[in-house]
Amino acid sequence: MTVPHLATALTGPILELERRILEAQPTIECWFRGQWQEHTPPFYGSVDLRNAGFKLAPVDMNLFPGGFNNLNPDFTPLCVQAVMSALDKICPDARGLLLIPENHTRNTFYLQNVAAITRVLRLAGLTVRLGSLNPEITRPTSIETPDGGELLLEPISRHGNRIMVDGFDPCVVLLNNDLSAGIPALLQNLEQTLLPPLHAGWAVRRKTHHFAAYDGVANEFANLLKIDPWLINPYFGHVAGLDFQSREGEEQLAAEVERILNLTRMRYAEMGITETPYAVVKANAGTYGMGVMTVKDPAEVVGLNRKQRNKMAVVKEGMEVSDVIVQEGVYTFETVNAAVAEPVVYMMDRYVVGGFYRVHTGRGSDENLNAPGMHFVPLAFASPCSTPDCSGLPDTPPNRFYAYGVVSRLALLAAAREIEQTTPAEVAVPV
Amino acid sequence: MTVPHLATALTGPILELERRILEAQPTIECWFRGQWQEHTPPFYGSVDLRNAGFKLAPVDMNLFPGGFNNLNPDFTPLCVQAVMSALDKICPDARGLLLIPENHTRNTFYLQNVAAITRVLRLAGLTVRLGSLNPEITRPTSIETPDGGELLLEPISRHGNRIMVDGFDPCVVLLNNDLSAGIPALLQNLEQTLLPPLHAGWAVRRKTHHFAAYDGVANEFANLLKIDPWLINPYFGHVAGLDFQSREGEEQLAAEVERILNLTRMRYAEMGITETPYAVVKANAGTYGMGVMTVKDPAEVVGLNRKQRNKMAVVKEGMEVSDVIVQEGVYTFETVNAAVAEPVVYMMDRYVVGGFYRVHTGRGSDENLNAPGMHFVPLAFASPCSTPDCSGLPDTPPNRFYAYGVVSRLALLAAAREIEQTTPAEVAVPV
Repeated sequence: MTVPHLATALTGPILELERRILEAQPTIECWFRGQWQEHTPPFYGSVDLRNAGFKLAPVDMNLFPGGFNNLNPDFTPLCVQAVMSALDKICPDARGLLLIPENHTRNTFYLQNVAAITRVLRLAGLTVRLGSLNPEITRPTSIETPDGGELLLEPISRHGNRIMVDGFDPCVVLLNNDLSAGIPALLQNLEQTLLPPLHAGWAVRRKTHHFAAYDGVANEFANLLKIDPWLINPYFGHVAGLDFQSREGEEQLAAEVERILNLTRMRYAEMGITETPYAVVKANAGTYGMGVMTVKDPAEVVGLNRKQRNKMAVVKEGMEVSDVIVQEGVYTFETVNAAVAEPVVYMMDRYVVGGFYRVHTGRGSDENLNAPGMHFVPLAFASPCSTPDCSGLPDTPPNRFYAYGVVSRLALLAAAREIEQTTPAEVAVPV
Repeated sequence: MTVPHLATALTGPILELERRILEAQPTIECWFRGQWQEHTPPFYGSVDLRNAGFKLAPVDMNLFPGGFNNLNPDFTPLCVQAVMSALDKICPDARGLLLIPENHTRNTFYLQNVAAITRVLRLAGLTVRLGSLNPEITRPTSIETPDGGELLLEPISRHGNRIMVDGFDPCVVLLNNDLSAGIPALLQNLEQTLLPPLHAGWAVRRKTHHFAAYDGVANEFANLLKIDPWLINPYFGHVAGLDFQSREGEEQLAAEVERILNLTRMRYAEMGITETPYAVVKANAGTYGMGVMTVKDPAEVVGLNRKQRNKMAVVKEGMEVSDVIVQEGVYTFETVNAAVAEPVVYMMDRYVVGGFYRVHTGRGSDENLNAPGMHFVPLAFASPCSTPDCSGLPDTPPNRFYAYGVVSRLALLAAAREIEQTTPAEVAVPV
């Protein structure tokens, strides 16, 4: 397989980071084991990483991952084993699982993802049916997937505090729907195990909570490895009370962008990095690459034209954006045949189960590669993230993938802590 | 890859069994999940299976598996993930592990197995060193493996109730030495976690205990699937108080052979099987295929000549045999290019992590394929045992492998119960 090439003037720091990670492998795994004793990992998740050569960091953590179809099929057994391990903890008696996908039934790529998740769950021994929140699905509806398969979407009914589809009363409900449109009454106060919990959906979740938790994780990990936490952690800030249409809060946003750019500029100068710092402004509850803006100058966020305002003002499901995260931009300097490549790492339970590169020819190294209408080419990781070759160079593919797996698990651990910390008081039941 | 061909006049029953197993997959996995809540799986194990076309059964369960080097390297991540999962339960704080291999340092195949296990443990994040019980190893001794690798064997020292090698005080001690020669004082009453426990070694373990536990497991499983338990379970009997040299107990042994042959003959007649029943007499505490005899007539065990007596009288480490298991022989009707092939399935924790076929041209379908001096060709399973294709025919390779994985896990579960049931009273600590 082609492995993306890391093309940057400054590869020294990343080789040093990868070397430290490899050397400390037993320490790292033992530390993760301890962390997973204290924090329950999310059922699944995917992390967008960016590798700038001088820095390797997660820029997004998705708790409703949508690209399982892009993983190397050779790693399916890893997914199956991870699900088996997750079920042991969550619900060992589980037989039936209801999977609730997103409503967009015409996105064939997404449907292949649903098919891939369903397959893994079935291989782990679960009976799986698909329940749809889509009001158009009023009776069992069969949908063909591009690979010739078939998915049966069924309307969900509620009986007391349980939800079911025709004749099927599941033990576990798994969301692959990120609840951007809000939490439907149908899903509230269920007695069934619901994964991830409702407050992990974008109706409640905030990126700033995640990255605040990641700050803690990154600092502890950096301390463990005696490395500079900045190597794995982008700066971020939070701006609330915005109204893009009426231009309320623009100055406040510009100030935050300036703060992040200044912090980044100082680090670049210290490390002799000659790239131009940039910041990314994202809807705090956004997803699908909507409501995202890349800026290199605070002035860019002041006096936005109508098109720019419209782009930022609403995200998925038409939700208004009044709350953003301003994140240090991390260049991605990996390329495949001159096209920019961004690694996405997939995890189930506490295990890394695969990943792929988003490869996109039409975009720059400082752009968001997960944007509306963006047709990236997925390039599945050829080797898993769990088999570093400690006798090899730090940047041989299995070793680079191991480092990717470690940094992704840091984001996963941050998500575990974030979900704990944001559990609404009324549902916080002592274990 | 070549997949062995099942060449038998009677494939109907096995297709039916494989079909039932596939159909019941969610039920089976849920049942296993429940069983593993109640019974701790051994750290690792391998199972010798035989597939007669009309019957698929385990004939041996090894708790000190010796062929990890024969597994498909693509499945290494499955082993790593299984070890991570095992460590969570056993000893999440574990950093250092001392692996105690067999003493035969000149068996290069065996050394490759030790290297393969070591690699997996290291990939799971453990610091691993090798401690030898071999009295010849009085100082750190480096041994080359055929693939150009190197193993460092170190003498073990004891300090109070802990064992260590120079400067290394492990959290966990993992035996890959089956303790055929007895339990050394060095290993008794350790405060470190010792896996498997001492009474799982052949100094204490008895095949009849294992197969008694397997009877229970096979009956429960057969009941769950509404199948005839005989399809997955060979008859067995126990004869003690033998002295092969003085011919004491020969008549008793012949009577037990006759009983097993008669039981088998009746089942063969019922099912229209035209093969000749046979029985296998094995040392109850034996291993390495020593002390094994195949008989088709009770008269064969009476009046053994000197060579036969010598063969049966002693096993590994010169231990005398006075105690045997008489097991219904299960034909192996799988062949690769006309050579007999016997599947061996490997498990770590509760997971099937791979397997291979012992392929041997010089032996018959009723012979033991794991015999002294036997040079089998290992043929690694190409696909894992966890990805059945429910839409495929029951005997497509992934489906056959799934059935193999299920039956092997039944033997693993039997081993878990056997280890519980045989725990010496003085060390039986309530959980």
